[in-house]
Amino acid sequence: MNLALDRDKPVPLAHQIRAHLERLIRERRLAAGAKLPATRELARDLGVNRATVALAYEELVAAGLAHAHVGQGTFVAPPTSHLDGAGSVNGDAVRAARPAIDWAALVSRHAQSIAEDDDRRRGFAREAAASVISFAGGMPDSGLFPTEPFRRVLNQVVRDEGEKVLQYYAAAGYPPLRSYLARYLLRFGVEARPEEILIVNGSQQGFDLIARTFVDPGDVVAIEQPTYPRAAQVFRAFGAQLLAAPWDTEGPRPDAFQRLVTRHAPKFFYCQPTGHNPTGLAVTAERAEQLLALAIEHQVPIVEDGFDASVHYGTRPAMPLAARDRDGGVLYLGTFSKILFPGLRLGWIVAPIPVIERLEAAKRVADLHTSALIQAAVHRFCASRLLDRHVTRAAAEYRRRRDALLAALRRRMPDGVTWTEPSGGFSLLVTLPPSLDAAVVLPDAIERGVAFTPGAAFFVDGSGAPTLRLSFSGVPVGRIDEGVRRLAEVIRGHVKRTRPRVERVAVPVV
Amino acid sequence: MNLALDRDKPVPLAHQIRAHLERLIRERRLAAGAKLPATRELARDLGVNRATVALAYEELVAAGLAHAHVGQGTFVAPPTSHLDGAGSVNGDAVRAARPAIDWAALVSRHAQSIAEDDDRRRGFAREAAASVISFAGGMPDSGLFPTEPFRRVLNQVVRDEGEKVLQYYAAAGYPPLRSYLARYLLRFGVEARPEEILIVNGSQQGFDLIARTFVDPGDVVAIEQPTYPRAAQVFRAFGAQLLAAPWDTEGPRPDAFQRLVTRHAPKFFYCQPTGHNPTGLAVTAERAEQLLALAIEHQVPIVEDGFDASVHYGTRPAMPLAARDRDGGVLYLGTFSKILFPGLRLGWIVAPIPVIERLEAAKRVADLHTSALIQAAVHRFCASRLLDRHVTRAAAEYRRRRDALLAALRRRMPDGVTWTEPSGGFSLLVTLPPSLDAAVVLPDAIERGVAFTPGAAFFVDGSGAPTLRLSFSGVPVGRIDEGVRRLAEVIRGHVKRTRPRVERVAVPVV
Repeated sequence: MNLALDRDKPVPLAHQIRAHLERLIRERRLAAGAKLPATRELARDLGVNRATVALAYEELVAAGLAHAHVGQGTFVAPPTSHLDGAGSVNGDAVRAARPAIDWAALVSRHAQSIAEDDDRRRGFAREAAASVISFAGGMPDSGLFPTEPFRRVLNQVVRDEGEKVLQYYAAAGYPPLRSYLARYLLRFGVEARPEEILIVNGSQQGFDLIARTFVDPGDVVAIEQPTYPRAAQVFRAFGAQLLAAPWDTEGPRPDAFQRLVTRHAPKFFYCQPTGHNPTGLAVTAERAEQLLALAIEHQVPIVEDGFDASVHYGTRPAMPLAARDRDGGVLYLGTFSKILFPGLRLGWIVAPIPVIERLEAAKRVADLHTSALIQAAVHRFCASRLLDRHVTRAAAEYRRRRDALLAALRRRMPDGVTWTEPSGGFSLLVTLPPSLDAAVVLPDAIERGVAFTPGAAFFVDGSGAPTLRLSFSGVPVGRIDEGVRRLAEVIRGHVKRTRPRVERVAVPVV
Repeated sequence: MNLALDRDKPVPLAHQIRAHLERLIRERRLAAGAKLPATRELARDLGVNRATVALAYEELVAAGLAHAHVGQGTFVAPPTSHLDGAGSVNGDAVRAARPAIDWAALVSRHAQSIAEDDDRRRGFAREAAASVISFAGGMPDSGLFPTEPFRRVLNQVVRDEGEKVLQYYAAAGYPPLRSYLARYLLRFGVEARPEEILIVNGSQQGFDLIARTFVDPGDVVAIEQPTYPRAAQVFRAFGAQLLAAPWDTEGPRPDAFQRLVTRHAPKFFYCQPTGHNPTGLAVTAERAEQLLALAIEHQVPIVEDGFDASVHYGTRPAMPLAARDRDGGVLYLGTFSKILFPGLRLGWIVAPIPVIERLEAAKRVADLHTSALIQAAVHRFCASRLLDRHVTRAAAEYRRRRDALLAALRRRMPDGVTWTEPSGGFSLLVTLPPSLDAAVVLPDAIERGVAFTPGAAFFVDGSGAPTLRLSFSGVPVGRIDEGVRRLAEVIRGHVKRTRPRVERVAVPVV
């Protein structure tokens, strides 16, 4: 403990010690329940008599700031005893109280861009009570997690190769996992050698590594719309100007894409051609070929965010662009976050060798490598066919939820409300009458016991106000209809209130 | 296939095609077994007669570079037929073979900076046989890993809270780990509330998040010299210009630091005041106060890379700058990579709340969050006092190795060679007579059965050639003397060979 005693001060040493500890406790730098150092130990560290420390501790106890437990030591008391009951927690740190450094003046444009983006979206995420049926979110249902089988493989891996996977590791990734992925991807028609696969911390890090490898401030990046906001945020943070190619029912519109690639020479085009977030749609075969041809012709690589092709609601998985690509123009990102455990932070990028080398160098700079322990455990899980077993079970459940949601929408929604029919992914996009703003509807919906994500979050150009995303992955099938019933009711109320133009409006499908 | 034919050349088109394909095959851009495009297809692509392509293919077959299979097509032959038997295996994909995208033209300045930096250091890392006693590296000894106790806590964590820690998680980190760290850091005098601690993937990610939060292209970053090269690399990648404050035996020199902060307004100053890599030195108390005062006066935050204060060879841990800081001017990075398992990729940043908020936003953009499973397991490991037990054991062993290394250097090294005396960390820096270049000595050393890291890697301004780093953390105590014996012998040989000026040169201590 860094406790500067002033032996020349008229204040007794015990008081100085007590005052110091008191400050630490009041500022919550010493947490409730924390054990204070043994008196012997602290006395030695400070070069004072042990009785001096004991006296200081007694004073703390007397002031209600600490409790002594015989034979165990002295512990910081719970905050109610030493804060002003207000439940207000934020006792400011001395540190924050004297801002000797003007931090705001030092912040980079990168950080400013992130903050602006976060601010823009702040209104879209709201805390909701447990009674609220939440179609917000968009994560897999942890109730479906194969936790116990994973525990067993984790155990085996630490036992069999712990020393190796707990040491520093090569940035490219755990070789057996890269080999497994090369085989796994063949299911979806994606041909990649293990050396063309880089292991990353979830697809989010994939976006980040791609952005830093290709984006200079001022560059144009072409992006589908609607799209995944955290991808857009990364590209913007690295200084990209985003220009959007809007989706219709078949994928990003080729006329818009062509205009972008011919006029703006974008560094790449980001899209999610299968299991698209938020719509759940997939790019059609014909559209895929059009986009690929345009991309190659204009030297614009496609960054394909593959979500997880295993989660699909057709008879077979939609084919990724990477599977159609014969020119090495597609960088393909995949993740275990949707189909297995998001908390592992494990994903991958498929790219031609010269690109993989760049991305690997960037990965080393970003965080050296992804935990080899996690990689080895997931590899063993997959190699034992536990993943396949899990996917079958989980995808069937997500399909049930999707079907229930679509049925409920058909049953409940008022005229003038439309929605997409997901062939993959965890969500769909609802379009309200154009006079409505989903962000305005949200507070009422939460009040009524149902939550969603306003669609504007998924639009890079500020549009999308009358849309909202419903994620079905986290809602038990038995609560879906009730959730939609509540939502329909709230929407009906808003439609009435805004007295829209009476004609039925043809809303562009997104 | 991107194949430029020159119709004005006197070389027949078939030969041009053959020569191009031959190059692709020899460069392994066309992998063994890869199918060449159908003659019809390639003829159409190139606008030539199909017979011309067929002729080119026949020539390839005749040269043993390809095989024709009737009814199937023409395939690249295995490498033995066209490579010089070197057993080099790496056949590249067709993907790489038709580089429809000119990737090099798309690469960002960030990526270029990383590549230049990697190139500069490439000569310093060399593969060495197992018989070589290696003082290179600088990682903890995996033979000391507490793997089995860790397996047990990992098990418990998955069993008790698997669903929660395998789901998406808050970017700031696992609250019990943040609270533990707040208490742990008090041992070293660093006062931080849990909210002032952000969990990251090892200190490398800490550097990265700090760089992106504060560095704009063209900014000056002040940095100690010698220093940790991967930190320097991150700052450079984000466009920083690095200006160095050289170490003497007491720390970074205050006169140099003062010059930097008064003339160049750096965004921050990066240093490792304890367990300094490569020297193992610690900043003295007086020097620490001088640096802090200058930093605050000139509004230059200090980014303190704390390595791990638990690994120290004095009677008590050296005090971090963050422990002396009363103005919130120090961002403190810590890691579990040195004292526990590097492979977990777990570290933390301590910073004032407004900075933590920025860093947390950057973390979310970088990879959403660090695996909560890993965080929970490490927390349980620490809370069960398993970390303390391990530290005691490991630090004692590292001390034995350090002592053995110092003793061997004193015993073996020729006159004119000096070295630092580590009070922490895993390494020390040796300075050779100024006429020698450690990078030139290295190949001979490896030949003789001993390896090290040339010191130039740790100098940001191109100096440091006559220095080398010896890491003792990975060398069993019984092999240290023999390693130094070999090294001394090689150095003696080089000293003789270069016939340096005879006078003993006073080398500045670094």
